[in-house]
Amino acid sequence: MRNVTIDNITDVVINAMSPDIAPRNRQIMTSLIKHLHGFAREVDLTFPEWLEACEFMRRAGDISDDKRNEFILICDILGLEVLVDMQDHRVTDGESESTVLGPFYRENPPVLPKGASIIQKHFDNSQTVRVSGRVLDTAGRPIEGVTIDVWEDAPNGLYEQQDPDQPDYNLRGRFVTDANGEYAFVGIRPEPYPIPYDGAAGELLNYMGHHPWRPGHIHFMLFKDGYQTLISQIFDADTKYLDKDSVFAVKESLIGQMRPAPAGADTELVMDFDFRLKKAVAKTLIAAE
Amino acid sequence: MRNVTIDNITDVVINAMSPDIAPRNRQIMTSLIKHLHGFAREVDLTFPEWLEACEFMRRAGDISDDKRNEFILICDILGLEVLVDMQDHRVTDGESESTVLGPFYRENPPVLPKGASIIQKHFDNSQTVRVSGRVLDTAGRPIEGVTIDVWEDAPNGLYEQQDPDQPDYNLRGRFVTDANGEYAFVGIRPEPYPIPYDGAAGELLNYMGHHPWRPGHIHFMLFKDGYQTLISQIFDADTKYLDKDSVFAVKESLIGQMRPAPAGADTELVMDFDFRLKKAVAKTLIAAE
Repeated sequence: MRNVTIDNITDVVINAMSPDIAPRNRQIMTSLIKHLHGFAREVDLTFPEWLEACEFMRRAGDISDDKRNEFILICDILGLEVLVDMQDHRVTDGESESTVLGPFYRENPPVLPKGASIIQKHFDNSQTVRVSGRVLDTAGRPIEGVTIDVWEDAPNGLYEQQDPDQPDYNLRGRFVTDANGEYAFVGIRPEPYPIPYDGAAGELLNYMGHHPWRPGHIHFMLFKDGYQTLISQIFDADTKYLDKDSVFAVKESLIGQMRPAPAGADTELVMDFDFRLKKAVAKTLIAAE
Repeated sequence: MRNVTIDNITDVVINAMSPDIAPRNRQIMTSLIKHLHGFAREVDLTFPEWLEACEFMRRAGDISDDKRNEFILICDILGLEVLVDMQDHRVTDGESESTVLGPFYRENPPVLPKGASIIQKHFDNSQTVRVSGRVLDTAGRPIEGVTIDVWEDAPNGLYEQQDPDQPDYNLRGRFVTDANGEYAFVGIRPEPYPIPYDGAAGELLNYMGHHPWRPGHIHFMLFKDGYQTLISQIFDADTKYLDKDSVFAVKESLIGQMRPAPAGADTELVMDFDFRLKKAVAKTLIAAE
């Protein structure tokens, strides 16, 4: 190892791994080292470029905190989150398509009854929408008791944790499907917004000549024991950027239509959207002796 | 772009780059996206694994500050710094080999006269060494006026910025070669030390089953206008870990021999080590009109 060369360094690093580590660790690191070195070789990466990349990563760390993980944003810009999401959630049985979680999810949103509003603050420049539908299994049977977390941005394009003028957990809620598998809540028509570009992710967008905009969408996370958790989004059919999402997350099947509400309704718009959940893979139970 | 699939996502992201960006940006990002996606595909990376990787990166950011860049350490463990260093500093003309900068360099060390000591604090358990030699060009002619920054760890294995018990800039100095190209300074015999494993780099070492130890070495940075800057290390020929450096930085040509000092000398050990610098590539001067 005191004669490391450009040609042997990749094998040297891989062979330095202990024989005792888990096979998955070895598989991941072997592939990662090969691709990382392959990248550096392919572009003949210079030392100053590498050092600047390390400083870029430090800046990404500097702007991250409990509420913001800049590395998720960076992965989103590079299409990595959507790739990993697609390959980890291959549609096999007619279940709803997933899409990226994004960096704005928060645990433990307010638990609300069916039909309640997630709007804690009035915005003049927004339209209210009643979103409702059913959660079904892949055979089309309603599922009762599915927990649904929803979250969306305000008309200024900001999620509540980005915006000191919004109440805590504004435009977030947790609902549960009823005996008919139905859910409903009142929110606002989601606005296109730029992903945060005040930090390292913005630097990367500039470096690549990408724009930061996302089409208007509402985030969903659906979970119930016995079913695979679904992380997804509904995209407003009439929003901008459907064909140039900065994080590549749009799927045709996730586009929802907002229509004028019927006369006498409490909201200006309504949208129906059903989800289908796949059964979780049964875990092998190891019988006690 | 609303029909992104596992098969087309890599091209979609690459094609989203603006036509206006610099060719080097496009070259780097095209290769990086291909290799990053290639890695995720090859190991069928799962969503939880990807999310944990993002959290790992955030933890690396959390422990980084002005004096510590955890991402450099991570690259070192992955052999990336030494690879980039080798390919950016290919030996073409008999000049000294470079090796990794490492994360402990500090700008503006104390400027000291030839032969001065960089030891600001006495350590009982160390041996003093006078390091001296000449800086030559690749034709073997001495070069006057080369600035040499040196830095090394204390007997406890810590650099001064890691250790509140050491004076600021302890075991660091800046020297200049004389008319004969000679430099000299007094330091201590460098000790093997573990790279910092209290943060994300330590997690990665565990994950790979690597140890954190480095062989004893003294860092050097040599620079003068008209010559290529040399970032290198001298490794103590009698130190441990010469054949299993945790950052893969040892080169046979960078191993130096410490010998007992002659009777009457001020230090316990002496070491001679010459460096050879390559001329910088001449920059094209664009004549003014």
